[in-house]
Amino acid sequence: MREITIFSGSAHVELAREICHHLEVPLSPTTIRRFGNDCLHVQLNANCRESDVFLIQPLVPPVQDHLMELLLMLDAARGSSAARTTAVIPYYAYARSDKKDTSRISIAGRLVADLLATAGANRVLVMTLHASQVHGFFSVPTDHLNALNVLAQHFRNRDLSNTVVVSPDLGNAKAASHFARLLKVPVAAGSKRRVDDNKVIIDTIVGDVEGRDVIVIDDEIANGGTIIEILDRLRERNVRRISVACTHGVFSGKAIERLGSQEDIDEIVATNTVPIPEEKRLPNMTVISMAPLLSETIRRIHNGESVSSLFADA
Amino acid sequence: MREITIFSGSAHVELAREICHHLEVPLSPTTIRRFGNDCLHVQLNANCRESDVFLIQPLVPPVQDHLMELLLMLDAARGSSAARTTAVIPYYAYARSDKKDTSRISIAGRLVADLLATAGANRVLVMTLHASQVHGFFSVPTDHLNALNVLAQHFRNRDLSNTVVVSPDLGNAKAASHFARLLKVPVAAGSKRRVDDNKVIIDTIVGDVEGRDVIVIDDEIANGGTIIEILDRLRERNVRRISVACTHGVFSGKAIERLGSQEDIDEIVATNTVPIPEEKRLPNMTVISMAPLLSETIRRIHNGESVSSLFADA
Amino acid sequence: MREITIFSGSAHVELAREICHHLEVPLSPTTIRRFGNDCLHVQLNANCRESDVFLIQPLVPPVQDHLMELLLMLDAARGSSAARTTAVIPYYAYARSDKKDTSRISIAGRLVADLLATAGANRVLVMTLHASQVHGFFSVPTDHLNALNVLAQHFRNRDLSNTVVVSPDLGNAKAASHFARLLKVPVAAGSKRRVDDNKVIIDTIVGDVEGRDVIVIDDEIANGGTIIEILDRLRERNVRRISVACTHGVFSGKAIERLGSQEDIDEIVATNTVPIPEEKRLPNMTVISMAPLLSETIRRIHNGESVSSLFADA
Amino acid sequence: MREITIFSGSAHVELAREICHHLEVPLSPTTIRRFGNDCLHVQLNANCRESDVFLIQPLVPPVQDHLMELLLMLDAARGSSAARTTAVIPYYAYARSDKKDTSRISIAGRLVADLLATAGANRVLVMTLHASQVHGFFSVPTDHLNALNVLAQHFRNRDLSNTVVVSPDLGNAKAASHFARLLKVPVAAGSKRRVDDNKVIIDTIVGDVEGRDVIVIDDEIANGGTIIEILDRLRERNVRRISVACTHGVFSGKAIERLGSQEDIDEIVATNTVPIPEEKRLPNMTVISMAPLLSETIRRIHNGESVSSLFADA
Amino acid sequence: MREITIFSGSAHVELAREICHHLEVPLSPTTIRRFGNDCLHVQLNANCRESDVFLIQPLVPPVQDHLMELLLMLDAARGSSAARTTAVIPYYAYARSDKKDTSRISIAGRLVADLLATAGANRVLVMTLHASQVHGFFSVPTDHLNALNVLAQHFRNRDLSNTVVVSPDLGNAKAASHFARLLKVPVAAGSKRRVDDNKVIIDTIVGDVEGRDVIVIDDEIANGGTIIEILDRLRERNVRRISVACTHGVFSGKAIERLGSQEDIDEIVATNTVPIPEEKRLPNMTVISMAPLLSETIRRIHNGESVSSLFADA
Amino acid sequence: MREITIFSGSAHVELAREICHHLEVPLSPTTIRRFGNDCLHVQLNANCRESDVFLIQPLVPPVQDHLMELLLMLDAARGSSAARTTAVIPYYAYARSDKKDTSRISIAGRLVADLLATAGANRVLVMTLHASQVHGFFSVPTDHLNALNVLAQHFRNRDLSNTVVVSPDLGNAKAASHFARLLKVPVAAGSKRRVDDNKVIIDTIVGDVEGRDVIVIDDEIANGGTIIEILDRLRERNVRRISVACTHGVFSGKAIERLGSQEDIDEIVATNTVPIPEEKRLPNMTVISMAPLLSETIRRIHNGESVSSLFADA
Repeated sequence: MREITIFSGSAHVELAREICHHLEVPLSPTTIRRFGNDCLHVQLNANCRESDVFLIQPLVPPVQDHLMELLLMLDAARGSSAARTTAVIPYYAYARSDKKDTSRISIAGRLVADLLATAGANRVLVMTLHASQVHGFFSVPTDHLNALNVLAQHFRNRDLSNTVVVSPDLGNAKAASHFARLLKVPVAAGSKRRVDDNKVIIDTIVGDVEGRDVIVIDDEIANGGTIIEILDRLRERNVRRISVACTHGVFSGKAIERLGSQEDIDEIVATNTVPIPEEKRLPNMTVISMAPLLSETIRRIHNGESVSSLFADA
Repeated sequence: MREITIFSGSAHVELAREICHHLEVPLSPTTIRRFGNDCLHVQLNANCRESDVFLIQPLVPPVQDHLMELLLMLDAARGSSAARTTAVIPYYAYARSDKKDTSRISIAGRLVADLLATAGANRVLVMTLHASQVHGFFSVPTDHLNALNVLAQHFRNRDLSNTVVVSPDLGNAKAASHFARLLKVPVAAGSKRRVDDNKVIIDTIVGDVEGRDVIVIDDEIANGGTIIEILDRLRERNVRRISVACTHGVFSGKAIERLGSQEDIDEIVATNTVPIPEEKRLPNMTVISMAPLLSETIRRIHNGESVSSLFADA
Repeated sequence: MREITIFSGSAHVELAREICHHLEVPLSPTTIRRFGNDCLHVQLNANCRESDVFLIQPLVPPVQDHLMELLLMLDAARGSSAARTTAVIPYYAYARSDKKDTSRISIAGRLVADLLATAGANRVLVMTLHASQVHGFFSVPTDHLNALNVLAQHFRNRDLSNTVVVSPDLGNAKAASHFARLLKVPVAAGSKRRVDDNKVIIDTIVGDVEGRDVIVIDDEIANGGTIIEILDRLRERNVRRISVACTHGVFSGKAIERLGSQEDIDEIVATNTVPIPEEKRLPNMTVISMAPLLSETIRRIHNGESVSSLFADA
Repeated sequence: MREITIFSGSAHVELAREICHHLEVPLSPTTIRRFGNDCLHVQLNANCRESDVFLIQPLVPPVQDHLMELLLMLDAARGSSAARTTAVIPYYAYARSDKKDTSRISIAGRLVADLLATAGANRVLVMTLHASQVHGFFSVPTDHLNALNVLAQHFRNRDLSNTVVVSPDLGNAKAASHFARLLKVPVAAGSKRRVDDNKVIIDTIVGDVEGRDVIVIDDEIANGGTIIEILDRLRERNVRRISVACTHGVFSGKAIERLGSQEDIDEIVATNTVPIPEEKRLPNMTVISMAPLLSETIRRIHNGESVSSLFADA
Repeated sequence: MREITIFSGSAHVELAREICHHLEVPLSPTTIRRFGNDCLHVQLNANCRESDVFLIQPLVPPVQDHLMELLLMLDAARGSSAARTTAVIPYYAYARSDKKDTSRISIAGRLVADLLATAGANRVLVMTLHASQVHGFFSVPTDHLNALNVLAQHFRNRDLSNTVVVSPDLGNAKAASHFARLLKVPVAAGSKRRVDDNKVIIDTIVGDVEGRDVIVIDDEIANGGTIIEILDRLRERNVRRISVACTHGVFSGKAIERLGSQEDIDEIVATNTVPIPEEKRLPNMTVISMAPLLSETIRRIHNGESVSSLFADA
Repeated sequence: MREITIFSGSAHVELAREICHHLEVPLSPTTIRRFGNDCLHVQLNANCRESDVFLIQPLVPPVQDHLMELLLMLDAARGSSAARTTAVIPYYAYARSDKKDTSRISIAGRLVADLLATAGANRVLVMTLHASQVHGFFSVPTDHLNALNVLAQHFRNRDLSNTVVVSPDLGNAKAASHFARLLKVPVAAGSKRRVDDNKVIIDTIVGDVEGRDVIVIDDEIANGGTIIEILDRLRERNVRRISVACTHGVFSGKAIERLGSQEDIDEIVATNTVPIPEEKRLPNMTVISMAPLLSETIRRIHNGESVSSLFADA
């Protein structure tokens, strides 16, 4: 494979540019059009024969359009004789559809993994999957990065002596538990039930939070309903300083409005796997770029160097 | 296979209902939701184990959402142990992406066919593909119906003695030529060039149209640009009565506005493979239902009767 | 498909017989041999052309031999023109290898799922997978039963007013949380870390257990190390009555010896997805048969009746 | 990939030699035998481990033998650890079977594409497919060259002021239209109907040909029936100078006899994608070698240079 | 599956008719044509939706044409929604290419098996494969019949007290050994070496043949070279009565001339897996029909009855 | 591919070390563990991204454990982005299951080949398959070495003037015949029948052995039953010097005890494709290392040099 060629769909061009900047590789241009009948059309505007192609496209809203763009780019790269094509999907939105919790549904996290392979993905690079098992949905070699080290680095500057990490849901508590261990603090978790699409109830909090500083951590924040609910429960237990952290700051629907109105949140920390436009950036929000980690990983994939060692000393 | 079970995505419930009515089979319910992060979720709300399942979903705008719904339904039906699942796609929008007319693009008509197979389609039922070769893109058994007989039946009631059928494009002239033969009239065709996404130019018209009644026929009308262009060229050749016919009346963008302003169009005929809401129905527009043909085809597929004989005496 | 034909490998003939008894279907004979070079050889000793074949084989120790037997039976059934072959795997041991928690390992839960499909499994029937996401590892239609309802039914006869359900590990707390909800009692969880193969440490217990009756629940008990560790932590918190429950009672290594020496365990409840020979049956052990649930599920799969409705009113 | 290794089947060794000459690469030897039971046997007589292998074999008569030779060579190259194998098929005869124009037939253009992939083709290189959609039949990366630029170059030396390009069939008129645009002349087309295997009828000619010089162009000429028929229709319209051009000069059956007897044909132009032996070369026939274009394309495929740019300035 | 539908390619219509006669099922018509460019075209002329389709086509010369016919029929049956398609190939000619006895060749017996699966074969029915291992080349369920019982039945009427069965080649001696056991006589074998395509040498005969009646048996006789060679060696050992038997009487090239000139051959016995026209039937030749066995097997496959039991009491 | 990386499972570390020694490449470490529930876990402990990975694992007893180790290593190498992974299986034990000699069994030699491909084997390197046709069971490029040249070299030092090579079974006589030709001596063969798993009967010996020195050769010796039986038959024919040779010295069950008690065996020659521990090495046993041949083959595979030429002058 002669060289790296990087293309971006329309989902997050800024992240792609930042990754290319770190790699000192130009971002190759694409033309993305929509036909009169609403079909999408993508053209890769740089020769990529025998190249090591990376296509950067987080599955952010509008998810279906961005997924189709990615599938079209994958197929185009294959047809254009790329030596290898890696789908770089910093936010793999369908990871949340990871089990059959009711009858006659698709486990869409698996389905989309299969669609990517069908379209021509030879490898996948993802970040902070909702559950670590989702890694096993991919039939092609997959590198699964997580942002916990980077997020932990951010909080280590604080006095954490009175802090507890809180997972809103027992089902995701393993990641919170790992995060707590990185910070050397205890962990607690809510017991979440989904009432309907727009409503979750947290019955109880398992673990000791009374009078503690809390860092609520989740893999993603979409419309913010779960966060608001856990904060309500935490306040009932008289927690003190409140911080919120996530990898994927989707902040859809009324999320920003809701979070903005919670005046006792000290800090909201997210990464840029999802683009967060200026108008969504609350005064107490910190956005950490994942471009350094993603670009270093791409460099190692291309050069055949170990990616796991990136996480070895974390 | 014990029985037919029919589900519809959200693309064209009315057509699905009409098909079910003809088949005297209930339309089984589905629940379609959109999560906070914009991912779609589809549940089939009727047992379909060992059933002969038909999923009705034309790929009408928003195309990507409707395609993803269909893929999710296919995967759900497979996971639910359907004996066989047929994707009924009366309008297969991506058929227009059928060749590599520039470099480094996907032949999306083939890609989407492969995605459908990956998601679990055992069979496909489509109508009036943009080119008949697109049939060969599908790796699963596919029934390809066309609406030409039905459209021809509509026009046969007229005096056709001075009529010529006109294809806007030589590339689609074969279908127009077949249509002309059904009506026992001559054929003409434009020589179309695409300037950019929103602009086509028809340099010339091949064949004799001077002073004739014309029926302009195309497989689909999207934003109407091609039709307006061919009408301009035809008027320069002093044609008389103008009719417009198509199978797929997408009528997107300014199509209705444009067509409505062409006061000399006698009649616009389309089928209901694409839903045409009341507000788009121009006074001179006739919409012919494909439900009788689609339901009879589904009945024959289920019963193992010949589908080709449906077209034998046309 | 004309009829049900059931074969069993050598892993758990007793369960297979019990299932056949419920279904009023004979258990068809197999011949399983080992060649001089240690290769296995399996012959299905009943005609199964056009039959709906079920192969019953939990992956109990020796796991590799039982897996190979199952693969050989699947291939033999395919070659013998079975209409459909379902691998009934009440204990899917490799489900525990469900993520890449270190570098350069196989996600064996996915690999084995692919091997089963390669060998000819058209469907799979499993019970209480270690994580619900493992369902998504299978590319063929899979029914995933769980034993929680049956286990809950067992405990409902008790006075549960002072009871808390305890998960040894936050990573499996979702299932414990669901179990607690069935019993209408609270939940707690340990925060487990694996030190090495034979040693886990539970640093802390999240949730209130002081002075409570506890039901420790896990999906499987292998050598019992985790259970002993959580019991030590629980005793430090002065719990009262101690019960232990699991779906898969593997009880390998020194498990029985260890559990037998914990004199304060009130009751150990397991199911028979794994064969528990007489000599392993401690005086305080209750083994609940899964044959009724498995046989009813097989009956419904064969007849095309809903399996999910089995769990609807749980 | 260390180097190019080129083998030829028995279909067109001369073209293979010419391509090798241009590439300054030796033509590696093959042994092709026929067993007593008529089975074919092909041996590649040069080491091709880790090589970039190109197998040159147009599907010329006897088509089935040449196809089988190619499949055997592909499988042999795969088994011999070629790094990549490209099937170079300058004449893909089965492209004509590209749709289901009657019931219960194979779309053989797709079937043969699948057979090539099964046998081990990693890439395909074809020339002037009967319809551009056939490109989408291939599941492996495919370069589709066309000879129109080369043919146009040939005719540009003439006075074309009174010339019209004629397609015998509206179904192939798009290519003729493109050819006419390259020559900056108008286009016309016949409306062809097939009566039976050996007989086509052209009812009418769409477009103005009266008194013009005509260049009749088709993708291939087999037994010449279509050309004779269109010439008859054109003479009825008093055309003047008559030229005939095609990419694939199959000239089977009585083609040469028929074309030789048409005394008013000024020139017959074909390429050498199909071998044209001396005895078939009519005095007015010009055969243009495609070896320069094919060898340059092979060179670019091997070096990872853009192939599309070859056609960019056409 | 509603009913059996049987089609025949052009290889051996007589056998197909005979099989249909035994099954009391009509032979459904096919149309087989050759286009001007030598491509084949096959149409199945009877509805076969949801039918259990059997396609009868031994791979007799011209092998490549008959193979392509079969592949086209398989694809057509799949596209026509056959419930299941079985390729009935009484003579699988490519079975002889079953190993890699020199470098850079295809194991064509495996390749053709894969081509059949790609084209749509759901099952295969073959007879007397050159080596029993070839059965393992097929990835679809395959029934492998052999003619040894039928041939043995023919010879049992004789006085066999002084008889020895002779295999011309040690490589095929296992089948001869089995045949000898059926006749309760000893076995001997030649040690064959292939000098070139048209010449084999048998260095020696292993086993005692001096003064014995011999039955030389082979799976197939093509150009007869091997038989002539073994007969020469046997005569040197003063054998007495000479009989020759084979399953597949290809009798190609000079086989009939050569065999006819061997005046001391008492009887030549073959089956009709390969059509043997009247002009090839030597006075001492007996042709045994396999139609009874093939039709009974087809009946059992269709009805889901055991095929192996057909051979149980042999 | 940047470099060779070699890992070994636990089957035969000594052979792997010897191969690495010849290649002057380090043996990369692996960690192989067994979980409490008997599942295996393998970690590759060296970066192998973009490497040319070779996994050395003969399928020696316990076969199922070693097979599973190999499958896990293959999947791990694929997931770790190896450029290519070759399974080096000097003893492919399941090759003996190569045909359907009874009903409703798996042809396990094919099944295991498919499992290896599913797990991620890009190539396979095997040695002395039980039948040469088994080569065709593999769908990935496979190099099939044999040890006959090496074994022949060993015996060439002897006076062979009175020697005959004896195959215990006609079914394997082709290899013995080839071996005899290498030694320029005649061949004989037993006619073996299997009575049951532990008992074979050799009815007769075909060929002249009276008073000769014999070298009994077989591909593998497992429990030695066949060898003991043929020796009994040979002694009845008054053979003189007795030698025994095989490629794969499995020597399972009572093989060593049995062979040790045959006092007239002059020499037992085997290779080290199967590890032969000191306690099994009888005084008259010679073990020839295959490491030189295997390492040279690996070197050539990696460098793209001809492997077949290794055997050209044998």
